Amino acid sequence: INSEDFDLAVIYVSDALYNRNIYFDTSPQAVRLYQLYNHWLPRVLVYFFILVDLSLALFEEPAVVPLPTWATMLVELLCLLVFTIRLGHYAKVIPRDKFWKDPKNICIIVILLLTLIDMIIYGALTATDCYGVRWSRVLRPLLLVNVTEGRQLRRAFRSIRNALPEIFYVFLLFMFSILTFSLMALKLLGKRGLKTIDGFPYFTNYLEIVFDLYVLVTTANSPDIMMPAYNSHVIFTVFFILYIFINTYIFMSAFLAVVFNNYKKYLKEEVRQLVKSKRHKMVRAFAILQERREEGGEPVVTQANWNQLVRLVQPGISNPHRELLWSVSDDKNQGFIGKLAFVQLADLLNIEVITLKSRPHPLQSLCPAFYLSAPSRLLCRLVEHRAFVIVYDLIILVNAVFIGLDEENPMISNSEWFFLALYLLEILLKLYVFEPRIFFSKHSFWNWFDTIIVISALIATIVNSALKSAGGYTSRQILDIVFILRVLRLIRVVDSIQRFRIIINTLIRIGPAILTFGQLILVVYYIFAMVGMELFKGKVRFYDENSSNPAKAYCGNSLLNESVFAKSNYCKNNFNDVVSSFILLVELTVVNQWENLEDNLVNNMETIDNDLGSGQTPTAAKPALMFKIASKRYRTVDAFLQRMFEADLDPEDFAENEDPEAQTNGNFSNPTFSSA
Amino acid sequence: INSEDFDLAVIYVSDALYNRNIYFDTSPQAVRLYQLYNHWLPRVLVYFFILVDLSLALFEEPAVVPLPTWATMLVELLCLLVFTIRLGHYAKVIPRDKFWKDPKNICIIVILLLTLIDMIIYGALTATDCYGVRWSRVLRPLLLVNVTEGRQLRRAFRSIRNALPEIFYVFLLFMFSILTFSLMALKLLGKRGLKTIDGFPYFTNYLEIVFDLYVLVTTANSPDIMMPAYNSHVIFTVFFILYIFINTYIFMSAFLAVVFNNYKKYLKEEVRQLVKSKRHKMVRAFAILQERREEGGEPVVTQANWNQLVRLVQPGISNPHRELLWSVSDDKNQGFIGKLAFVQLADLLNIEVITLKSRPHPLQSLCPAFYLSAPSRLLCRLVEHRAFVIVYDLIILVNAVFIGLDEENPMISNSEWFFLALYLLEILLKLYVFEPRIFFSKHSFWNWFDTIIVISALIATIVNSALKSAGGYTSRQILDIVFILRVLRLIRVVDSIQRFRIIINTLIRIGPAILTFGQLILVVYYIFAMVGMELFKGKVRFYDENSSNPAKAYCGNSLLNESVFAKSNYCKNNFNDVVSSFILLVELTVVNQWENLEDNLVNNMETIDNDLGSGQTPTAAKPALMFKIASKRYRTVDAFLQRMFEADLDPEDFAENEDPEAQTNGNFSNPTFSSA
Repeated sequence: INSEDFDLAVIYVSDALYNRNIYFDTSPQAVRLYQLYNHWLPRVLVYFFILVDLSLALFEEPAVVPLPTWATMLVELLCLLVFTIRLGHYAKVIPRDKFWKDPKNICIIVILLLTLIDMIIYGALTATDCYGVRWSRVLRPLLLVNVTEGRQLRRAFRSIRNALPEIFYVFLLFMFSILTFSLMALKLLGKRGLKTIDGFPYFTNYLEIVFDLYVLVTTANSPDIMMPAYNSHVIFTVFFILYIFINTYIFMSAFLAVVFNNYKKYLKEEVRQLVKSKRHKMVRAFAILQERREEGGEPVVTQANWNQLVRLVQPGISNPHRELLWSVSDDKNQGFIGKLAFVQLADLLNIEVITLKSRPHPLQSLCPAFYLSAPSRLLCRLVEHRAFVIVYDLIILVNAVFIGLDEENPMISNSEWFFLALYLLEILLKLYVFEPRIFFSKHSFWNWFDTIIVISALIATIVNSALKSAGGYTSRQILDIVFILRVLRLIRVVDSIQRFRIIINTLIRIGPAILTFGQLILVVYYIFAMVGMELFKGKVRFYDENSSNPAKAYCGNSLLNESVFAKSNYCKNNFNDVVSSFILLVELTVVNQWENLEDNLVNNMETIDNDLGSGQTPTAAKPALMFKIASKRYRTVDAFLQRMFEADLDPEDFAENEDPEAQTNGNFSNPTFSSA
Repeated sequence: INSEDFDLAVIYVSDALYNRNIYFDTSPQAVRLYQLYNHWLPRVLVYFFILVDLSLALFEEPAVVPLPTWATMLVELLCLLVFTIRLGHYAKVIPRDKFWKDPKNICIIVILLLTLIDMIIYGALTATDCYGVRWSRVLRPLLLVNVTEGRQLRRAFRSIRNALPEIFYVFLLFMFSILTFSLMALKLLGKRGLKTIDGFPYFTNYLEIVFDLYVLVTTANSPDIMMPAYNSHVIFTVFFILYIFINTYIFMSAFLAVVFNNYKKYLKEEVRQLVKSKRHKMVRAFAILQERREEGGEPVVTQANWNQLVRLVQPGISNPHRELLWSVSDDKNQGFIGKLAFVQLADLLNIEVITLKSRPHPLQSLCPAFYLSAPSRLLCRLVEHRAFVIVYDLIILVNAVFIGLDEENPMISNSEWFFLALYLLEILLKLYVFEPRIFFSKHSFWNWFDTIIVISALIATIVNSALKSAGGYTSRQILDIVFILRVLRLIRVVDSIQRFRIIINTLIRIGPAILTFGQLILVVYYIFAMVGMELFKGKVRFYDENSSNPAKAYCGNSLLNESVFAKSNYCKNNFNDVVSSFILLVELTVVNQWENLEDNLVNNMETIDNDLGSGQTPTAAKPALMFKIASKRYRTVDAFLQRMFEADLDPEDFAENEDPEAQTNGNFSNPTFSSA
């Protein structure tokens, strides 16, 4: 096996590991380019420049921080250049015909071209002092969707698109229901001469009834809309209760059910495809590395080749971890493995394993006589005792009370030094008892949290006191930071209660899903913010509290004179810059629910039967080397999804699929679905 | 096999069929009593008297329709008598020790005794003109939970109880989060001297902050609560957005996920137990009916015995249907079936089968020459054509527009006769083309709906016209009914669109679940209504529109003077009688969601891939006898639940479980779970 073939095998395995589905050229040159394409640095750079491109909205008209047009245009040109280079790189990696068949590449090219055209037009218009609109800004977030790494985001958009037809039919039925109920309301209540609370005729205009009843679905005008009818006769409440039952509960549930089912149905199909193409890639890698031990025997991969492969796929893997994986694959200890054992390597590498090295405490090596003396051992036992945790939880609670009290009192403000000293002592004691490298291991989230918070609080408190004693001047900003750090410290109490830790770990585990969801929200918000800014900028103005401008009373827009909007001090809820627009869009979103989170939570909750400890173990007697599966967390969202549908997937999806076309062509197309 | 043994076998099979888990005595006498106990009449009677007992609240102080105390007391005594008789009957059916071990029996006895004591005390107090409280009324709805038939309701309450511990921990964490955020808000915003819109200091009192932020979780005071901070500096929005994200979205999702998972977990276990005990019962029935065909052979059940058994278990079953079931069980046509084939009988009987008899149209038998003539056949083809449906859909839409127009116009009001005639014509035409017994079969919901609505509308319109022409007087009530019927007729348009029919059928299918949920709501509302009435009756009064009482402006309670409550005309939202209390409780519920419905919808939506037709088939050439599975509807909720978890249940649950204890003791205890 020459080194170029080996490179190819490494790429197949790492593609399987990270579920990349890119059809690359297998020529040695293209393989090297592909390795570079997958390197973390260009990937991070692309995301960085997307971020820069998106945040240009902060500096463009209407700006939060105004910059001259030529400056933002120059930065944007740089961004476009980076995206073009990345796309050019991609075009070199995959065959020409595949490149032009992929809609996401076409999409990026169109976005880049339109942006360039828009910039030229806008530049020309501003140069001639004409009014120009930077309309291509709404296209910017689409880059996030169409870059190679935006797989999760594309999947989310695909799920939404696939659910649309069914949602549409439920929506039609829902509208039909509202229109029918409105007609009934018109006939039953319109002729009774009832009056609303403001003295207007009640339920006499059909379109107004439709609107009122539509708002009632959100329960926003309940029970006001019902009161005139209820006051007239109790029997009319039957109408309204039936209406709310059918339209608010039944139909809203139907919408949710349709979305949930479609999401599940298509996701299952996508995951099936992912599993299939993963196996294909592993089989391809096996075909490269295989040898025959004897004439006519089964092809196998030797341990030497396997070791080299794993070392190249995951350079950071420890030798014991690699040996563990080998002993799992080669369970008969033959020195070579067959196809089936080889194929599971991608899944084995996806299991996050923490190597726990049981080494003696550094102090024990330095002066064992002292560290192993009776008082030292007693101290260790004390710190390891449950009471130690309880005592510190009580200290935190007392601290909480002190924080709540008035900090103007010198006794209270000085007590902060006392608490800080106690927390520092705790960390030092723990470092004395536990091996520092284990205490600060990658997975000891709470130890890191504690240490960073306490040390930051210490620094901020010292800086604050220094400033105060130097000039009697207290910086508001530093004081804010001190307060935030103090309150954050209280969160620690959560970690010491087992059940709370499980809930928190579950919430942390849905992080990747929230990240995808966050990107989706960003795309939608950004587009709405851009459009909103062009349409509404400057329509509503915010005046500072101390401003004496009479326009302050009506947000600078005489249409809003005496309006509830202006009276409620809502003037800052406007589209005057990108930050205000985003905050306004969040406010508008708040009345809705984020159902995606729920699905993920439901599936996560199921797995937390017994979570493993926090990774810090006292220096008790134990084997010199231990492995631990890092809870049931998954490195990639794809791996998590596969586990989620494990029970639902057909066994044959996991069986080897000798599709000859796929085998010879190496065509790992992304799963696609007809929209029917 | 003697007839008493046969009776026992019949009871075992019907218990398996309806998932009854009652441990009854197997003595012939007890078996006969048990048959009587399961008869529909006493069961309906018990529910009727529970309903009577519950609706006594309408007539007791504070009453909607006041009745003398002795009258309501007499009725209540009658109800108590009925419940006692039913309980006595139950005690005769099951062994004494089992009776006293069952908590639901103890519960009923305690409720009956407490009610009796309360009635005596109340009677004595009112006789001596003292003030008495009928406190035992809150116990009434508990009868609904504890009667033998309240299995679904008990299961729902068990699910809630089982989820409580986990919910409690999430709630604690949620409270901790609110308290921590409030502390941070106090420290960050309290010292900045901000003012609310009303000029009060902003975020300076810790308890007020906690309350405000708690309300913010419901998004009710968003964005008002944020505006002073936002107006002061944009950075504070980060605090509020983070707060809403964590507490409204993450925690509310966590609550839902915990409830959903617990519900699913325990329900799965209960269903597993149900399936197991169903098999036990069928095995017991088999043991009674079994015979040996040859020496040492497997025990079997003959067709004759099987036929008699099925006839006794389901008296209404048609011979062809029974023969179909036999041919499914005895697929080798041996004339007898083994244990395995016998055991599946309970599931076979649960499949609702419609027997479609293809009989010629009565007119065809009466005068074939006419019915089979060319014009008649053309008419049939026209009515069966899709265009006929479309034409009538258009007519309905035109009718909808006419209904919306002003009915004072004589042209419009006379058009109603025209539409009524068209609808009648449609029904007559369909009756001419389709066999009447098929047209009005049990499962042709829409045909029944159409006919009833049109005939009722015809009658109501005639009555209305008669009244009008007789005395120029139009009864408001009859006119209301006419309008409701007219609008209801529009719903018909939904049936002719395939996708709508599927959605509607799905919604109808969750009916049983809604029924259970409705009972649960009734129990909770009733208890709250009883307590609320005792506490708040007469505190808020409603005065008629024409009343000149000055107390009208403040709902008869000077505390409410100038309050928003009184100004919004909310006076009728009070606890003055049981109807008002229920309406008020519904209004308070409206802001929440009914999550149970969603689960059921999700699971139902999955099954509607292709729904079968509406059961009406033209007289085309076809076999003389057809069977059709009546969509995938289930007769019992239990059967539905079992299908729901089919994939999740272990195969061994369906395998025969030869638990010797259960076999010999016949102990079919209800599934119970430890609350740990």
